[in-house]
Amino acid sequence: MPNVSEGRRSDVIAEIGEAAASVPEVRLLDVHSDHDHHRSVYTLVGPSEPLGEAAFRLARAAVARIDMESHHGVHPRMGALDVLPFVPLGATPMQSCIDLAHRVGRQLADGLALPVYFYGEAALRPERRMLVDIRRGEYEGLRATVGSDPAREPDAGPSSVGPAGACAVGARKPLVAFNMHLRTANIGIARTIAGAVRASSGGLPGVQALGLPTSRPDIVQISMNLTDLDATPLHAIALAVRGEAERLGVELAESELVGLLPLSATLEASAAILGLPALGASQVIELAMQET
Amino acid sequence: MPNVSEGRRSDVIAEIGEAAASVPEVRLLDVHSDHDHHRSVYTLVGPSEPLGEAAFRLARAAVARIDMESHHGVHPRMGALDVLPFVPLGATPMQSCIDLAHRVGRQLADGLALPVYFYGEAALRPERRMLVDIRRGEYEGLRATVGSDPAREPDAGPSSVGPAGACAVGARKPLVAFNMHLRTANIGIARTIAGAVRASSGGLPGVQALGLPTSRPDIVQISMNLTDLDATPLHAIALAVRGEAERLGVELAESELVGLLPLSATLEASAAILGLPALGASQVIELAMQET
Repeated sequence: MPNVSEGRRSDVIAEIGEAAASVPEVRLLDVHSDHDHHRSVYTLVGPSEPLGEAAFRLARAAVARIDMESHHGVHPRMGALDVLPFVPLGATPMQSCIDLAHRVGRQLADGLALPVYFYGEAALRPERRMLVDIRRGEYEGLRATVGSDPAREPDAGPSSVGPAGACAVGARKPLVAFNMHLRTANIGIARTIAGAVRASSGGLPGVQALGLPTSRPDIVQISMNLTDLDATPLHAIALAVRGEAERLGVELAESELVGLLPLSATLEASAAILGLPALGASQVIELAMQET
Repeated sequence: MPNVSEGRRSDVIAEIGEAAASVPEVRLLDVHSDHDHHRSVYTLVGPSEPLGEAAFRLARAAVARIDMESHHGVHPRMGALDVLPFVPLGATPMQSCIDLAHRVGRQLADGLALPVYFYGEAALRPERRMLVDIRRGEYEGLRATVGSDPAREPDAGPSSVGPAGACAVGARKPLVAFNMHLRTANIGIARTIAGAVRASSGGLPGVQALGLPTSRPDIVQISMNLTDLDATPLHAIALAVRGEAERLGVELAESELVGLLPLSATLEASAAILGLPALGASQVIELAMQET
């Protein structure tokens, strides 16, 4: 799921995606570009070895086409290929993604001279598990301190930052980016609900949430990242936000999904609404057909 | 989805399933047998041609092993292979299932000397669209009248009924058999809710519902067939029953699924709970991977 610091030039966005999709066995399932964030998220799937090669080609294209000196968007960033998380699907163990992250991270360091920081499950230092800690100060802050501050020494690659910046390479569980909307102009209500549900203020585990305005003055957003769907499934957060909205007397508008959902999240949501806790792929005709 | 009049002798149930599954490209996904109903429902999937052959082999095994003279269960029935509906999956048009029903029905008539009635979308007479009208009087009633009453003349096969009875062959949309449970000993409440939601008493289109007792004295059941998921999706009926139960102050227990669900039903249920009306297979990672 590479996050690239380009969300405006459609030719560059396409070129970077095509570089990755040029690897046989790798498929580019989705590209989500955001103009205000000036950022694109690519969803690539495939077996481990080809996926690593695709990530390298994507990084090479991003480094060639993006100059961090002139990049400015509302989303925090520190490099052309800003973040490169590997996510296990199906029966793939997390360890495969950790190994792949380390292998590809060293390739980026050696082949593209990028400072690389390992994060998430692939972190080599406990203080680098969280992206927010690695990216503190963003591109400009990192450039100013990387050679002198030992705490900012990269895990691989040079101790200096060029115009392509640095890259965080990691492994993590599937993350779902999911935004819910309220029919109100009152941003305070979105912030109140975000505060009630997010983990950091005592809400639900694995939930990051912010109250944000939208381009429509009568709609505000609760922008969420769900980083641990085992701890808090997607439907649980949807019900929690719905409950808070009802309590505050605000109506919900359509939700928004950024990128894709894992199949398990849709089965769990169906199970919850239908009262079928054991609902699995073998109870769904088309999925049962694919099982051996 | 053949419905066979055998729900007790496990060797016969297995033998009939194996006869169908012996056709290459056809898979037997599920067998749901009910002792009280004395009936089994087989879920077979495959391409049209092999599926027709599998249905014929299953019919031949059922006819060889089941004697309707000694068959008695609580479910209405008129033959060893009582009902044979073909159901389109994915992009398969209904017309393919209608054509297949007609072809296989004539094979059953010619090859096994079974009186065959075409029903549902495959009906050749408007008064034979509903299974309940074809099966009126059950095996015994049909045997007594088939040669003399022109209204009971089969669409194919002999005008006489042997010990294997007759068979209704048809095409229909996917049907979901779905039971919801209430934590109460009061069967009247289950009947009230069933009456509120079923189509025939002014409830939701495509919903058949009965209030029934269960083997647990503190739990009653709303037993439902959903025959038109386009008109009333599965999650809509679940929410309707939940709403009625809340209104009557009764708690819901776990639901029960008889057989399998179509994938679209799980996506629609997820879409409803998440507030994502446009949720489709291309937004689900594992499903998007399979699309071309």
